[in-house]
Amino acid sequence: MSNDQEHVSDSGRRDFLKGALAAGSVAASLGAAGTPLAAAQTLQPGMVPGTKNHYYVPASDKTVHWGYFSKSLKPVVQVNSGDFVTIEVLTHHANDDAERMIKGDPGAESVFHWDKQRKGVDRRGAGPMKPTLFGRGAGEGLGVHICTGPVHVRGAEPGDILEVRIIDVRPRPGANPRHKGKSFGSNAAAWWGFHYKELLTDPKPREVITIYEVDTAGEKNWAKAVYNFRWTPQTDPFGVVHKIIDYPGVPVDHRTVQENHGVLKNVRIPIRPHFGVLGLAPSEADIVDSIPPNYVGGNIDDWRIGKGATMYYPVAVPGALLSAGDSHATQGDSELCGTAIECSLTGTFQVIVRKRDTLAGTALQGLNYPLLETQDEWVLHGFSYANYLKELGPKAQSEIYSKSSVDLAMKDAFRKMRDFLMTTKGLTEDEAISLMSVAVDFGITQVVDGNWGVHAIIRKSIFAGG
Amino acid sequence: MSNDQEHVSDSGRRDFLKGALAAGSVAASLGAAGTPLAAAQTLQPGMVPGTKNHYYVPASDKTVHWGYFSKSLKPVVQVNSGDFVTIEVLTHHANDDAERMIKGDPGAESVFHWDKQRKGVDRRGAGPMKPTLFGRGAGEGLGVHICTGPVHVRGAEPGDILEVRIIDVRPRPGANPRHKGKSFGSNAAAWWGFHYKELLTDPKPREVITIYEVDTAGEKNWAKAVYNFRWTPQTDPFGVVHKIIDYPGVPVDHRTVQENHGVLKNVRIPIRPHFGVLGLAPSEADIVDSIPPNYVGGNIDDWRIGKGATMYYPVAVPGALLSAGDSHATQGDSELCGTAIECSLTGTFQVIVRKRDTLAGTALQGLNYPLLETQDEWVLHGFSYANYLKELGPKAQSEIYSKSSVDLAMKDAFRKMRDFLMTTKGLTEDEAISLMSVAVDFGITQVVDGNWGVHAIIRKSIFAGG
Repeated sequence: MSNDQEHVSDSGRRDFLKGALAAGSVAASLGAAGTPLAAAQTLQPGMVPGTKNHYYVPASDKTVHWGYFSKSLKPVVQVNSGDFVTIEVLTHHANDDAERMIKGDPGAESVFHWDKQRKGVDRRGAGPMKPTLFGRGAGEGLGVHICTGPVHVRGAEPGDILEVRIIDVRPRPGANPRHKGKSFGSNAAAWWGFHYKELLTDPKPREVITIYEVDTAGEKNWAKAVYNFRWTPQTDPFGVVHKIIDYPGVPVDHRTVQENHGVLKNVRIPIRPHFGVLGLAPSEADIVDSIPPNYVGGNIDDWRIGKGATMYYPVAVPGALLSAGDSHATQGDSELCGTAIECSLTGTFQVIVRKRDTLAGTALQGLNYPLLETQDEWVLHGFSYANYLKELGPKAQSEIYSKSSVDLAMKDAFRKMRDFLMTTKGLTEDEAISLMSVAVDFGITQVVDGNWGVHAIIRKSIFAGG
Repeated sequence: MSNDQEHVSDSGRRDFLKGALAAGSVAASLGAAGTPLAAAQTLQPGMVPGTKNHYYVPASDKTVHWGYFSKSLKPVVQVNSGDFVTIEVLTHHANDDAERMIKGDPGAESVFHWDKQRKGVDRRGAGPMKPTLFGRGAGEGLGVHICTGPVHVRGAEPGDILEVRIIDVRPRPGANPRHKGKSFGSNAAAWWGFHYKELLTDPKPREVITIYEVDTAGEKNWAKAVYNFRWTPQTDPFGVVHKIIDYPGVPVDHRTVQENHGVLKNVRIPIRPHFGVLGLAPSEADIVDSIPPNYVGGNIDDWRIGKGATMYYPVAVPGALLSAGDSHATQGDSELCGTAIECSLTGTFQVIVRKRDTLAGTALQGLNYPLLETQDEWVLHGFSYANYLKELGPKAQSEIYSKSSVDLAMKDAFRKMRDFLMTTKGLTEDEAISLMSVAVDFGITQVVDGNWGVHAIIRKSIFAGG
């Protein structure tokens, strides 16, 4: 895919103005209570005025890469270890209901812009720019998530660990005055879902979008469904017909679908705001599909990666190159139908470089996978293939989709937890294995992302005893 | 296996004395605070004195069936719908440390008795009584759990649901004065564990027993390890050498093993007392291995099946025939190494027959699997095969062990949750599938019981909204 490299590092993502932001715009964007707003003025990344180490990266056509990670991407901002960065993340499903999720929001409008002449962001996915494989569009939709970034962290080198503390996560308020004070998300029961070949009722198969409403005032800790509709063939502005959801960001023409209001009546979905995608650029390939999670994180789709949690990632390339995407209002373990409540969010992160030579005897020693720490727990992420890019060879990015297995992910999670207990806690293998059987909970993270996931949870209090 | 039937219904399990219990003994057995004690006198099942509908079933060689379920077993007690029954359950791993888990306890001693002449309970497992398959012993260890029961519930018929409310669960205090106020459990990292072929350190392979201590005063909500040892070939009193843990209840000669004290130092294991085995006799075969869980429950190994929870089982045979076994002080989701902290417990249950014609419109309508209800959640149990006895044909009981898969169990759990939401909550299939993706958590119950398990959890509060 070397012929795509020119595009990956194209000029559109280079021209950010570091620290050149007008004071008023970011102050407004943070709001009185610190709530980031999708302010019209804030389309350039830079330092938050009045701070020395807090950067702000709005989501715009200039600050996102859509559907892939790449070590060749130009960073949108460069920060030091210990700095804070607030990152706006847009859901790639916003065009399922542009009225509620895009209209009036300059950042979202710049990203989703698509008319007969041009797209705000042309490449969507890691496929060829000329869509010679499937004819879906540039990048072929081989990767779907709108990722904001990457953030270059100075001093981060391969072999180090990047610690990412999630300081805050907030919903992005809808900009359309008709839906003031609300935010919306989309759940797509799509062809890549676990259920798709198992449908009971007609028509079979079918894809269904459910639009959910999320309170942005923080008074209600639940989401509720607004309506659903069956996906019908959608013709994009370039004239390509999308019979199924095969390319991200296709605008849904609501004159062609039947909205069913009143679905999931009286059902309150507890919210668990988090980032489905948070991770670093891998070193193994120049451009990598954003869908399968991997050793550097990415699309882990663990709802525990939310406010108050800390992630640790092995750094694979200089500067680490952190990106965030696939924001979710909530998700269940397994993400069964293929997506969560896909909902734009803004996160504030502190990034800290843990140098390789300082890790001995810590929980980070030898860490070669994305590790989650919460106040009470360690959560280890296993996948069908711990590093599928390395393990599956040159065709890894297509083969991973035919090799998905919870059984394999369970085995990987077991191995990682054993290593963690032996390395970090100094247990013998026999102690570690007994402890895993009596005190570690293994759950199914997701069964829809090619490289399926099983997470292993151990409570910290287990080790607090005397 | 029809030649085994004589033994299954042999006289030893028939001669219980219903309601003929001396008043003093059961009163003593319940203790001042209602704590069931392994009282020497209490070896006969019957009514708790002073009550009209509370039965007591002590564990003894007369009240247990070891390693199998059978519709042909004579009940140890007959109760009415709505009655309470307290059931003592012995761990089948007590002979890993008889000094701590058997000595001085008449019930346990009667069950585990084994000298050159006879065993207290000869059949252990669903295999042939003459051990012509593997030469391990009567029943061949094809099934391992000491099950107390069965309890016949009057009026329960195939097609009905048996509701089992778990009123109380308490550890069985050790009877050896040297360990007063303590209870003990055993964790075996055994050949059927998920880890067994994956060991890192030598010698490979190996089986390891870890003995844990549990507080019986209720002041400490954690267990701690006492010591571990590697299994060495053990010669049973009949002269059979058990190189691996291939037959339950083999007495471990501690002169042949090396006890490593001080293992898992300062580690506190939170306790989650529960019954690994709780379930009904299936109708498909006369004698059924106790290891694979099935549609009538059995060895589900879900730690949520503890105090305060309610189980619902489809009744397959007249009287339902409820048994309890495989008591655990605690377990992690997956039961990775093959066992939990296997620890004798006593449970008090209320059993209620839900007649087939009263189920329409309730959560029990069409229920054909073991369903768990807690105060806050519904937990549905999926298996690699929902009813392996029916699905896998005449050789089901051996074939199930070669067909274990978390992937299949995930699919079964998905199907069950979809049916539950559509039937019980009246959702359309599209509503159910979206809800599962955003609000249902799928976890790995166990990967060691032949018929592997995935559970699906949905919170009740989701439906409480207006």
